[in-house]
Amino acid sequence: MQWSSLVNICDLIATFAFATVGARVAAAKGMDYGGIILIAGVSSLAGGTFRNLFLVHQPAWIPNPWLFAAVFVAVLITIVRRSSEPVGRFLLALDTFGLAVATVSGTNYAIGFHSGAVIAVVLGVTGAVTGGLLRDVLSQTEPVLLHRETIGTSALAGAVIYVLLNEFQVNKAIPAIVGGLVVVLVRELSIRYSWNLPRISK
Amino acid sequence: MQWSSLVNICDLIATFAFATVGARVAAAKGMDYGGIILIAGVSSLAGGTFRNLFLVHQPAWIPNPWLFAAVFVAVLITIVRRSSEPVGRFLLALDTFGLAVATVSGTNYAIGFHSGAVIAVVLGVTGAVTGGLLRDVLSQTEPVLLHRETIGTSALAGAVIYVLLNEFQVNKAIPAIVGGLVVVLVRELSIRYSWNLPRISK
Amino acid sequence: MQWSSLVNICDLIATFAFATVGARVAAAKGMDYGGIILIAGVSSLAGGTFRNLFLVHQPAWIPNPWLFAAVFVAVLITIVRRSSEPVGRFLLALDTFGLAVATVSGTNYAIGFHSGAVIAVVLGVTGAVTGGLLRDVLSQTEPVLLHRETIGTSALAGAVIYVLLNEFQVNKAIPAIVGGLVVVLVRELSIRYSWNLPRISK
Repeated sequence: MQWSSLVNICDLIATFAFATVGARVAAAKGMDYGGIILIAGVSSLAGGTFRNLFLVHQPAWIPNPWLFAAVFVAVLITIVRRSSEPVGRFLLALDTFGLAVATVSGTNYAIGFHSGAVIAVVLGVTGAVTGGLLRDVLSQTEPVLLHRETIGTSALAGAVIYVLLNEFQVNKAIPAIVGGLVVVLVRELSIRYSWNLPRISK
Repeated sequence: MQWSSLVNICDLIATFAFATVGARVAAAKGMDYGGIILIAGVSSLAGGTFRNLFLVHQPAWIPNPWLFAAVFVAVLITIVRRSSEPVGRFLLALDTFGLAVATVSGTNYAIGFHSGAVIAVVLGVTGAVTGGLLRDVLSQTEPVLLHRETIGTSALAGAVIYVLLNEFQVNKAIPAIVGGLVVVLVRELSIRYSWNLPRISK
Repeated sequence: MQWSSLVNICDLIATFAFATVGARVAAAKGMDYGGIILIAGVSSLAGGTFRNLFLVHQPAWIPNPWLFAAVFVAVLITIVRRSSEPVGRFLLALDTFGLAVATVSGTNYAIGFHSGAVIAVVLGVTGAVTGGLLRDVLSQTEPVLLHRETIGTSALAGAVIYVLLNEFQVNKAIPAIVGGLVVVLVRELSIRYSWNLPRISK
């Protein structure tokens, strides 16, 4: 299998993952089917869209409308299974996988357009976390990204590792696999041991 | 009268309609004149702005600053008439007209840049509904788009009809008129008979 | 010292000012360090980012990642000093300075790309106020811009003066200095004498 089709398949799975979490959050908030579709779409596509706009590129869904199919299937499954409970263990794993893929694929995309290391990291993280942030803002929920968990930290760690390993240019796959594993590892450990970033205590 | 000037006039009226609804929502939320102007501007211009950014084009208000005049007149009327009651029957009709024009004009714009059918529909709907969504987010109200009514459904129906009829390319005006009428019809019927999209019951 | 390096230094200080206010608002809302970094970044960089996107340009932080250093230092100081009290007198002065610089620098940027007077004013004001607006939306606070104070009015007055003086083209520095002073003056006076824009009384 070619590298680029592997990337495409991973992007589709990540889109599906983020769309499923988004659909579940929207359903739990009592939105109608239209709201569920919209939140699923924003959750899964907004991050990459803003990353591309910052680079003055079209969003990926314009040349590749198949990404909408991933959103549609995610919404369909949510509606058919009438899922409106909070996000469970399996969905959290799916979300973490989505975060890993989005981070790596976004950082890789930015590097491909000759962004420097700092910008590649910023765009990789932005692309990975913006969808979830907008999902929570539109659902009028306290954004998880800003208050709890280590979504941003996990993405940052993965993006930095990706950029560092990429400097050696041994093999295109190594930075992607290690970067993605770092995202999964940091997030899984922080969930298991309830690690949180500190706050400024009042 | 030329086709393009008719389109421009309709765009101005749609901008005026969305700006009026936005100004009214802002006034009802107790915002000051500055907040009213800002919400009126976002309500009426954000949808087309994002649609254009996705296509890597400048927003329409850069080459055509007359659109700001429509916003300004809408705000002026709202302030002079000291209107801060909820949106009434006449304004709802104006809003529906705005939705029809924005849907048709946005879908037409996207097709003009060789977008495929799916992307034309997505961009047409995005351009028509994003302003109202941001209006509600900035006003810290539950977004109507996500919870009630059939704004998204009406725009979707109109955009799909437009794209389908456009395939036959008989006449530029037919898809626009029929598409717009479909938006108005779906929205009016859904308001009259209180049709809502279903939810996932808990 | 060259004009362009003076502009760069002012931009860095304005970024630092907006980032500090953002970090303080995030800390006061009980966000973790990740949330503080993100809100500081959005507060200080989102305005210029959107202004540039509307002109179909890359955000300034892509060619000039030093802007992130200003954000980083602002966050570091906030965390080290454990500042989570509401914004005080000194910070308000810093914020006003940031507003003046952002307005003048944004209006100047827009004019440099042959925008007409109206668009230059709109882009100057948009670049100056959008960061604070998004800061409040993401912090789930009532946006100051829409409800209180005269942030928007001050920026508008400064941008208009800048554009008018710029017509005479005597000297590049005069419109910038006078425009900036007008922003500071309008805001300081409105704070001292509790001037507010009117509302539509209910």
